Amino acid sequence: MKDLPLSKVYQLLEPGPVVLLTTAQKGRANVMAMSWHMMVEFEPPLVACVVSNADYSFAALRATKECVIAIPALKLARKVVEVGNCSGRNVAKFEAFGLTPVPAERVSPPLVAECFANLECRVADTRLVNRYNLFVLEVLKAWSDPTQKNPKTIHHHGHGRFAVDGEMIRPRSRMP
Amino acid sequence: MKDLPLSKVYQLLEPGPVVLLTTAQKGRANVMAMSWHMMVEFEPPLVACVVSNADYSFAALRATKECVIAIPALKLARKVVEVGNCSGRNVAKFEAFGLTPVPAERVSPPLVAECFANLECRVADTRLVNRYNLFVLEVLKAWSDPTQKNPKTIHHHGHGRFAVDGEMIRPRSRMP
Repeated sequence: MKDLPLSKVYQLLEPGPVVLLTTAQKGRANVMAMSWHMMVEFEPPLVACVVSNADYSFAALRATKECVIAIPALKLARKVVEVGNCSGRNVAKFEAFGLTPVPAERVSPPLVAECFANLECRVADTRLVNRYNLFVLEVLKAWSDPTQKNPKTIHHHGHGRFAVDGEMIRPRSRMP
Repeated sequence: MKDLPLSKVYQLLEPGPVVLLTTAQKGRANVMAMSWHMMVEFEPPLVACVVSNADYSFAALRATKECVIAIPALKLARKVVEVGNCSGRNVAKFEAFGLTPVPAERVSPPLVAECFANLECRVADTRLVNRYNLFVLEVLKAWSDPTQKNPKTIHHHGHGRFAVDGEMIRPRSRMP
């Protein structure tokens, strides 16, 4: 995996792909699927996300204040669904679904080798956690996999239906 | 436009489409393009969004605590870019770009007739506004246009490039 400039992180998350979120606590890594996230600032990149307090990852994220956002391409869609359909409480998901944890540089939770981008994050603001389960994260370090060219991402429409990226357009503006 | 159950609102925003945000202040409506938004709660639907304090809409949103999130389909892509490339400070955007304001039911800012869905919102939490320009909105009322079937949305990748929704998939999980 290759360094990705922090100034380009927004281009990955702004389109709204389903992502994986890894956490680690007491030496055990976990991974969940997440669609409720958005950019908050370009650089240093800030990201807001909602991790339900019903999710097993919630306690680890709140306690360790670290996570990795890993972005899967279409080829991982089935694994993403499987990851999302069970809990780290009773499943060792990296092993169960054949995902490869790779040590991160700045945080304890692992990168996901199969994803085309990985963002190492620390929790920057917890003021809205108690009320909304809303965390503000700062991206400390970003990686991309240069072997995955023009990856298509998936976007959750509810009930396990996903839109896959189609054509890329660049509408001409009539503005000067 | 037809009532949309509030329980279905997340299905519109979770995929991460570019949306339009309308505000109104002193009898004047404005509209901006926005990609930094996410779901926060299913029902009543809560939505977080970032509206830069450099945007003309910021002052109206903060002062009136009301807005409409309107979701444009692909056919509006060029207008969305035009809306995003200028400011309500010096352009009457509804007129300039041929968008049709329609009175909302619960808030003062208008719906956008050309959009396939419109969400009437009030600001529910401003604790992160000063620090991050992050508003938490509650969706009070939702509308959809039944004549726009299976609309494809657009997703901003930066620098005016958008991914258009492609095929819809429903990956089979091997989980029980």
